Amino acid sequence: MRSVEVCVSPDLIPCYELEGKIVVVIDILRATSCMVTGLGEGLAGIIPVEKLEECKKLKDKGFVAAAERDGKKVEGFDIGNSPFSYQDKTLKGKWVAVTTTNGTRALVHSLKAKEILVGAFLNRSALVKYLLSKEEDIVLVCAGWKGQLNLEDTLFAGAIIDSLKEYQVEIKNDSSLTAYYLYDRAKADLFAFLGNSSHFNRLKGLGIEEDVKYCLKEDLYDVVPQFIDGKLTCALVEVEK
Amino acid sequence: MRSVEVCVSPDLIPCYELEGKIVVVIDILRATSCMVTGLGEGLAGIIPVEKLEECKKLKDKGFVAAAERDGKKVEGFDIGNSPFSYQDKTLKGKWVAVTTTNGTRALVHSLKAKEILVGAFLNRSALVKYLLSKEEDIVLVCAGWKGQLNLEDTLFAGAIIDSLKEYQVEIKNDSSLTAYYLYDRAKADLFAFLGNSSHFNRLKGLGIEEDVKYCLKEDLYDVVPQFIDGKLTCALVEVEK
Repeated sequence: MRSVEVCVSPDLIPCYELEGKIVVVIDILRATSCMVTGLGEGLAGIIPVEKLEECKKLKDKGFVAAAERDGKKVEGFDIGNSPFSYQDKTLKGKWVAVTTTNGTRALVHSLKAKEILVGAFLNRSALVKYLLSKEEDIVLVCAGWKGQLNLEDTLFAGAIIDSLKEYQVEIKNDSSLTAYYLYDRAKADLFAFLGNSSHFNRLKGLGIEEDVKYCLKEDLYDVVPQFIDGKLTCALVEVEK
Repeated sequence: MRSVEVCVSPDLIPCYELEGKIVVVIDILRATSCMVTGLGEGLAGIIPVEKLEECKKLKDKGFVAAAERDGKKVEGFDIGNSPFSYQDKTLKGKWVAVTTTNGTRALVHSLKAKEILVGAFLNRSALVKYLLSKEEDIVLVCAGWKGQLNLEDTLFAGAIIDSLKEYQVEIKNDSSLTAYYLYDRAKADLFAFLGNSSHFNRLKGLGIEEDVKYCLKEDLYDVVPQFIDGKLTCALVEVEK
């Protein structure tokens, strides 16, 4: 039976065997929510980079460049990390270079996997459908916050476990159970539940409550971003027969 | 206000500031449950070491030596990692050298802390009382399983949060909230809840269900093991006025 595991922090990736598996990177507030929005709105693709300087270089080469540090847009870049900025119609068909605090780190640390996808509440159903169309074991990698577990990413991992548990998928490790129980407790009102979280309170201080509400919406997009050769584009989803 | 944080794996300790704080190391199945039992039963002290060879050397020097790998007693050592073996009356007043898979690692990686304690359900109330007698911030370090989060240690961290939350203690990070919610869900029947955990199932395979039941008992001992200069002895608990 295929299995699903949760990894609550990119710093714990070395404890997991990723070879031959599908990794789903999760950074709900807000990197992967932005990626799903951007590709859902018709971006050609996204180039996630870990360092600001790399992103600056890509901007100098003509890419639209997005940069966020500690929740704020970095001076000198085109856009920050608000998902709404990815809904700008003038971006359609363009490539965006993006660097974020935790999300990019989770992506580049998952390179041993057979396939790397990006998940958010915004593409939950599309992601689950895609995962069910495959046979590989799954590792849900939470981007967390500066190496620590965070509520929102763990909650989304739990939501995926919740979706997969009706199928023939073994819930393999204790992190998966923890994520599932957390989601089960929170699912009636995710926004209220997150009101307690440390990251949410950091974000509230930045005045982006609307971003948070948006990032908790489900299934606004049916794209599944896929990370290949350093670039994120939409995964090819087979047409149902 | 003083704060309490949870760290779900020793591999995440570098993400935490331990300086000036009290660390509580948690390895419910079974290292810290054994340590509490041993000191509660009158051992002079315990020397936890990370490597088997170090433990072997201490045995050769005349120490009683305890070693466990992957849940089993290692050949050639005096005792394994069953808490019942620490109730042997002939051990009273003796020093025991012990190496375990995850617990020792958590201890030796917490050395930057001002004070390092050992917690288990078996000394829950004594530990909480001791913590409340101090003023430093607290970090609850779960030993986990091979670097991953595990249910039983996270549950106990949640139990401590539950005990501290009535007092003036700030629940600081998302791991603390997660641990608390998990405990809140499980507390009515910890043993049944753990029936789902990966580690529990590993242990069940080893036939030590009785050990697990024992390790979930509360307040059998009122000792608080304290780690100083590589040795665990009972912390000095002030007599109530």
